[in-house]
Amino acid sequence: MGEFDLIRRFFTRDQQVARVGIGDDCAIFGAQVGYEHCISTDMLVEGRHFLSGVDPAALGHKALAVNLSDLAAMGAQPHSFLLSLGLPEADEAWLSAFSTGLFGLAQQHGCALIGGDTTRSPLTFINITVQGLVPHAGGVLRSGAQVGDDIWVSGQLGDAALGLALRQERIGLSDATLRARAIRRLEWPEPRVALGMALAGIASAMMDLSDGLAGDLPHILRASGRQAAVELDHLPLSDALRTLPRMQAFSLATAGGDDYELVFTAEPRAAARIEALADEHGLQLSRIGRILPLAAGETAQIEWLLDGRPTRFEAQGFDHFND
Amino acid sequence: MGEFDLIRRFFTRDQQVARVGIGDDCAIFGAQVGYEHCISTDMLVEGRHFLSGVDPAALGHKALAVNLSDLAAMGAQPHSFLLSLGLPEADEAWLSAFSTGLFGLAQQHGCALIGGDTTRSPLTFINITVQGLVPHAGGVLRSGAQVGDDIWVSGQLGDAALGLALRQERIGLSDATLRARAIRRLEWPEPRVALGMALAGIASAMMDLSDGLAGDLPHILRASGRQAAVELDHLPLSDALRTLPRMQAFSLATAGGDDYELVFTAEPRAAARIEALADEHGLQLSRIGRILPLAAGETAQIEWLLDGRPTRFEAQGFDHFND
Repeated sequence: MGEFDLIRRFFTRDQQVARVGIGDDCAIFGAQVGYEHCISTDMLVEGRHFLSGVDPAALGHKALAVNLSDLAAMGAQPHSFLLSLGLPEADEAWLSAFSTGLFGLAQQHGCALIGGDTTRSPLTFINITVQGLVPHAGGVLRSGAQVGDDIWVSGQLGDAALGLALRQERIGLSDATLRARAIRRLEWPEPRVALGMALAGIASAMMDLSDGLAGDLPHILRASGRQAAVELDHLPLSDALRTLPRMQAFSLATAGGDDYELVFTAEPRAAARIEALADEHGLQLSRIGRILPLAAGETAQIEWLLDGRPTRFEAQGFDHFND
Repeated sequence: MGEFDLIRRFFTRDQQVARVGIGDDCAIFGAQVGYEHCISTDMLVEGRHFLSGVDPAALGHKALAVNLSDLAAMGAQPHSFLLSLGLPEADEAWLSAFSTGLFGLAQQHGCALIGGDTTRSPLTFINITVQGLVPHAGGVLRSGAQVGDDIWVSGQLGDAALGLALRQERIGLSDATLRARAIRRLEWPEPRVALGMALAGIASAMMDLSDGLAGDLPHILRASGRQAAVELDHLPLSDALRTLPRMQAFSLATAGGDDYELVFTAEPRAAARIEALADEHGLQLSRIGRILPLAAGETAQIEWLLDGRPTRFEAQGFDHFND
């Protein structure tokens, strides 16, 4: 199977958002009046972001999910994506499963594949560039957090990190259902696209959690010039995490990566609207802390609280060149 | 040096085309009235697309050049790009040289870096997604070649393939100047952006040559439903290629990759305008063949001519999964 056969067989679907799609030097698409374009790119590298031998359907799903999660974090509507794929060989069963996982999620979010590149590579890697639309002058940035805003997170934190620890047999968990759920959170993350769009106009700042709350929330704080206080005992923990010692659970929930939940800030008076969104989207939304002023000369950071009091809690987000 | 330091120090420049640039979950940019967007993505993998130990400045240049070449092939004006970078380590000297090569070319074409992703990876790879603009309903596609059109190529063919053979010591060349020129064509390709834009409205079909004329021209033929006759002795060969046996030179010029020249078709009466463009752009433009009708049941292919007569010449383009 050659490169062009591979593209035709596994990666050619409906491309109606683009006037020119796969098969020319570029894809061409028109602008929509009243909208701006959002664009983001994220890659997954074998051994770094996924384990060799992972289910290729899950990998296809996850490669797009982590990108859609960036659109969700802006409150953007998905539009289209481009896929670069490096593979040791053109294995038909692998490609079939990968593309099924990929297009399953793409179709769910109306996001069309409009271009890409494939090559042989000693190790598998996937790079996706995703595009979305926000209303003109819209998009929820990281820089809008105001003093006094509540800090919220969607879903539950730390399950993906637990899933990874289970896969690597660093943690044991006897309950098979809880175990399967945690692994599913790692391998089949659900980008919070509809929630992100619903939060546009409500959230003052927003981002998605890919490297852990302790590593990611400071991006909002630095961009906004604020501090934060976060109540460890308000972190939304799954039943699986609740089986662990409390500090270990907090550590997974703050320093573990791959949650792909949204963290956002909003005025306290928006709380009722946000709680209504939780019902509407069938998704837990938890108030975990508060935005504080940043004094001159201070660096933006998180003050961790436990039972309402400051605690010495050392959580570290994931840094791709230091870890 | 951490991931965010690395981005700040080496990859943060002026982003004026985007309302929101590097540092948020997505970049946001507005549409331009009367224009459509072109988008394309291309990756370079160590050991596959470049040799380990290559000059990082050349690599930064080339990674963007191969993408700008796709815009050139549509006749598009460069707008912006996103960079994904996988590296074994954050080596400051390497990053400094790489970013100098990258931004040197980016600035030359007014193409702003607006986003990206970096990660540690056992081998170096670079994925760039590039965006450009074409007038509404514009863009030179692969599908427009008409029977009787001339086939043209820009520049000279086969030098990059010769440069690779010289680097790998598969071919020897005693003349140091010719040798250096061929290697420069391999490592510092110049995307034909201005020429591509000038050819919009003149060329009936166009693409860029990345895998060799023998592999790439059939894409135009298939998309247009045509055949082609190409005169081997009309191929534009450099002085370096002319030092080689004639059939070896033809082979490099048709089956070697990495030329990043443009191949395009145009009505014979456009020849004078095209020759004027050659002068204007200081670039050789050569008429190498003719578009022919495709009979029912035939597959689109190239008939090679030598001294005006059909010849049995076996040239193969590069296929990333078969070679």
